[in-house]
Amino acid sequence: MTYEPAEPMRAEPMRVVALSSTFDLVNVFAKVRDPRLVLLRPEEVADPMAIDMALAWKPQDDAFDRFPNVRMVHSIAAGVDSIVGCPSLPADAVVARVRDDAQAMMMAGFAAAHVVWHHRRMADHTRAQAEGLWERSFRPPMSSDVTVGILGFGLMGRACARAIAALGYRVIAARNSAGGTAEGVEILSGPSAINEVAARADILVNVLPLTDATRDILNADLFARMPMGASLVQIGRGEQLVDADLLAALDAGRIRSATLDVFRQEPLPAGHPYWTRKEVLMTPHKASDSSHGEIMRQLVENCELYRAGQPPKGRVDRGNGY
Amino acid sequence: MTYEPAEPMRAEPMRVVALSSTFDLVNVFAKVRDPRLVLLRPEEVADPMAIDMALAWKPQDDAFDRFPNVRMVHSIAAGVDSIVGCPSLPADAVVARVRDDAQAMMMAGFAAAHVVWHHRRMADHTRAQAEGLWERSFRPPMSSDVTVGILGFGLMGRACARAIAALGYRVIAARNSAGGTAEGVEILSGPSAINEVAARADILVNVLPLTDATRDILNADLFARMPMGASLVQIGRGEQLVDADLLAALDAGRIRSATLDVFRQEPLPAGHPYWTRKEVLMTPHKASDSSHGEIMRQLVENCELYRAGQPPKGRVDRGNGY
Repeated sequence: MTYEPAEPMRAEPMRVVALSSTFDLVNVFAKVRDPRLVLLRPEEVADPMAIDMALAWKPQDDAFDRFPNVRMVHSIAAGVDSIVGCPSLPADAVVARVRDDAQAMMMAGFAAAHVVWHHRRMADHTRAQAEGLWERSFRPPMSSDVTVGILGFGLMGRACARAIAALGYRVIAARNSAGGTAEGVEILSGPSAINEVAARADILVNVLPLTDATRDILNADLFARMPMGASLVQIGRGEQLVDADLLAALDAGRIRSATLDVFRQEPLPAGHPYWTRKEVLMTPHKASDSSHGEIMRQLVENCELYRAGQPPKGRVDRGNGY
Repeated sequence: MTYEPAEPMRAEPMRVVALSSTFDLVNVFAKVRDPRLVLLRPEEVADPMAIDMALAWKPQDDAFDRFPNVRMVHSIAAGVDSIVGCPSLPADAVVARVRDDAQAMMMAGFAAAHVVWHHRRMADHTRAQAEGLWERSFRPPMSSDVTVGILGFGLMGRACARAIAALGYRVIAARNSAGGTAEGVEILSGPSAINEVAARADILVNVLPLTDATRDILNADLFARMPMGASLVQIGRGEQLVDADLLAALDAGRIRSATLDVFRQEPLPAGHPYWTRKEVLMTPHKASDSSHGEIMRQLVENCELYRAGQPPKGRVDRGNGY
């Protein structure tokens, strides 16, 4: 007689509805399924009143109307603006976001590389190569003479600040709420911090969360405070940048060059001026993604915490919006 | 009667001959003159036998024939291969090089940015932008899953290793001589270190000095050891890269992409394949320069040490060639 293991007790998997106007999240996360959790498209839910947890990304305005008992909503990313701002989000639902050191490190590497790109005028080198020109007249300042300003000092901002400081730049950061330091980084806070950082930044990196206070914050007034010929690395949210103001600042030479990773409308529409501006290096919202496996891991963890009556990790302050 | 300071005693400025086949060094350093030292073109020297110190960069083969009493030769950069290898260099002359932390940091930032460039396939993004395509299908591995190999672990190699490790990459370095560590960097030494590092490197950064042992070291044999689809950041010396072997490795997909900053012949000749290879990002020997002021400061310092009978800083082992 052979030893036969008993079938282990299996709890019913947790049922989570996936709400997104842009992605089929069930499909996106198909390869990283976890036996403790089943992700359902809205139309696959027979008993919507029994659903109390959601995974969301840019949910439609009425997405939660069919799911009024949802009390825990998890973003697929660090950004939660589209969830917190969703009109149908139940008033007492808690919202959680992904907080992922590996993702922050990817963001930091992206930011640091683009700081170097603009500092060293790498776009001029690629143009010279295309034209067959050996052009080496530009002598860049030493990195210790270049000030990089960071707008935002959460998980992403701190990682960016540390990485850029490690490359020898002078780093100043504007933060809103208190907390957090980074070696070699000067931190400014208070209502004028963003303007002060912009005024000193040869290269400005934006990683602010999108809130009512930060919408349209990268505008003509801010650009006018910046040093003539500064550069912008925009890896926050598209709605923070006033496109017409940036185009005018590029025309005026106020902003010499920019990396843009996020846009008001994504995909960026055909014919938008950014596609062809030689001063603009565009990436299609690829500065940093968490791995699907890590997002699923955090979703499962937070669903289990919720079921155990505990607050989820990465919980957002719905009032602040981040 | 007003106080009148006595005229200070002025020593005769030290006279240093400038020997270069590529630059008019007197002109290059005209803006950073130091009263303690006068730099002379060879034809400006009336009494060549009285000259015992030289500033040099790629001196002509017979450059020292007219100056047989030169006993201290200073490079304008970190590289000394063209000086140590100069046939007319007096046998008992000491050779010194620039050793500049700020320059090393610039080199490190350049290397780190190009590591990110290849890791994140930024060239695909710039191509997509040029074609008006919103293309975001590539999911890069997390930086902690990318191994960056560094060939060379002197001042430059250590700075590169530290900077790249600070961006979250797994860093391994090959060193020849003993000495030096960097946090988060695995160091391999011994005769097989270069091959071992290459075999593990998703991205390989070359900052080796040029010696008989490193000439042509970036060749088909080394590329064949590297992981399929690896990238190369070549910021060492042009003579270390076998161009035909790199072109073949690019054709085969063995090397997916490369940054090339240094070339066998500079300026790179018109019509050279590198100008138009889409896998190659070219820069015209601009990864890192010391500031002219810093070079002059080190030259003056070393001339004063020499005059005081002391060994110069940054003295090179002529036998090793670095």
